[in-house]
Amino acid sequence: MKRGQHLEMGGGAEFDAIRRLLETWGPQATGIGDDAAQLAIPVGEHLVVSTDASVENVHFRREWLTPEEIGARATIAALSDIAAMAATPRGMLLALALPESWRGDLQALARGVGHVAREANTPIIGGNISLGTELSLTLTVLGSTTHPLTRSGAQVGDILFATGLFGGPGAALRSLQSGENPAAAHWERFVSPTPRLREAHWLVEHGARAGIDISDGLLADAAHLARASEVTILIDATAIPCVVGVSADEAMASGEEYELLVAVPVERATAMNVRAFRDVYGIPLSAIGVCKAPEPEAVQGAATVRGFEHLG
Amino acid sequence: MKRGQHLEMGGGAEFDAIRRLLETWGPQATGIGDDAAQLAIPVGEHLVVSTDASVENVHFRREWLTPEEIGARATIAALSDIAAMAATPRGMLLALALPESWRGDLQALARGVGHVAREANTPIIGGNISLGTELSLTLTVLGSTTHPLTRSGAQVGDILFATGLFGGPGAALRSLQSGENPAAAHWERFVSPTPRLREAHWLVEHGARAGIDISDGLLADAAHLARASEVTILIDATAIPCVVGVSADEAMASGEEYELLVAVPVERATAMNVRAFRDVYGIPLSAIGVCKAPEPEAVQGAATVRGFEHLG
Repeated sequence: MKRGQHLEMGGGAEFDAIRRLLETWGPQATGIGDDAAQLAIPVGEHLVVSTDASVENVHFRREWLTPEEIGARATIAALSDIAAMAATPRGMLLALALPESWRGDLQALARGVGHVAREANTPIIGGNISLGTELSLTLTVLGSTTHPLTRSGAQVGDILFATGLFGGPGAALRSLQSGENPAAAHWERFVSPTPRLREAHWLVEHGARAGIDISDGLLADAAHLARASEVTILIDATAIPCVVGVSADEAMASGEEYELLVAVPVERATAMNVRAFRDVYGIPLSAIGVCKAPEPEAVQGAATVRGFEHLG
Repeated sequence: MKRGQHLEMGGGAEFDAIRRLLETWGPQATGIGDDAAQLAIPVGEHLVVSTDASVENVHFRREWLTPEEIGARATIAALSDIAAMAATPRGMLLALALPESWRGDLQALARGVGHVAREANTPIIGGNISLGTELSLTLTVLGSTTHPLTRSGAQVGDILFATGLFGGPGAALRSLQSGENPAAAHWERFVSPTPRLREAHWLVEHGARAGIDISDGLLADAAHLARASEVTILIDATAIPCVVGVSADEAMASGEEYELLVAVPVERATAMNVRAFRDVYGIPLSAIGVCKAPEPEAVQGAATVRGFEHLG
């Protein structure tokens, strides 16, 4: 954890801010004090790393969320990228740009980050703090795994499975932007999504060989998977698991879901015990599409919504 | 490299921005396309990681620097933390918050980042881009080393060596803030410092057992080293190597130097070939202080400036 250089403020305030962060995090923050953090990765595992920013008035508005929720949500979003690789998070770093007007919320922001870090058993190993005119939290998460799940591993014939229920964050955003109170079920999905870390491991054990987390929206992220794997993806709109009060179209466009979309070879897919998944994790696992050979009109990769027989 | 979620802008502009970044970086950007980057660390080496933010109007002003210089300087600052650990950078990630008014400068910013990355032989393995109301570049650098240099390894009796000449960035900042043109020698040190990556390895080979990079100022960073190592540091002000036109006091207070301060056991220090160092790296290596037993009035660690016999 380092303070940033800056023009407007003496170093004392930054050191004080770092002290308060470390007090808030307690033992969750470890190994802080050098110019760079050291991190041990289990022998034989692949290191994965991702960085993800949450910026005020871009990713959230101050009036929508408490500081704890802002800190938590930023951390969840970053961990979700590690879940998408089916990796185990090993450490995280927080780069915080903190406007004067947020100074009093520093500990609450830190509590949100620390709470999610603790839930994910991920030490906070470093960071950076500086002034800024808008609040931003940039979380870098390092993880490791013996078998990284990538976007490029899907093959023709694979069945696509999605975790959870879709549409909540999009519906909550629409309500907030209209000045209305979101429905409780939508709000819950917006304010405290879950990084699907354990679910990702289960899915790899049960045959997943490509995956992505749903941050841009199910349809958009399916297109990313299709492009990386050089397949065409057909999605069965009738199979999309939606939160109450949301259409399939809305569900497929809803971003920041942090659910997983994975591709599973058909022989493993037919044996997929979706009931066992639901029993363990409390959320549905749904077969929602298939990977087809690239079509001439979709050589760049595409996700297409078509009716076809239900796979689930 | 992922686009950020955001409220104000559709995804097309972000994807276009990522495409332009990748075009600018060319082969310097590798392995981008999954939710997290994979990175191989040589077997037997320790992984180190640091994150460092450069924020407009905090770390720089737009009128001071070209976009290339802003990108380069942010990257140099981040690499310097890896140099401070005597590690070799293995990969970096850029989280960019890009205001609309900077959109036209994206490729120039990226050229600056890419140029420094190439100089340091460091692939760009991932990142994040989002809108923002102020430009910020958060660089996360991962590195590895068999023998990490930490702040806590200095022992009583160790001699402190500093690389380079001090005072340039501070003098340049004073000029800029007074609306004057900095002297060329000061400006050069402000706008394009050097991450002392190779120098750090040389220093470890020649006995350095604790180190820090000078980002807060020589005196302040010596105090960090003293605190972490539980020693008192005495600095010989007459031994500080200063750029032309700068006093020792100004040199010791000047931040963002990105030079190294290392502690070397006295038996290695007496054999230190500072001439060979200068011949190889083109900058001086100067003995500027000693580590003493902690003093009652300085139990928290302190760097004290005292006259004592010249060590160099």
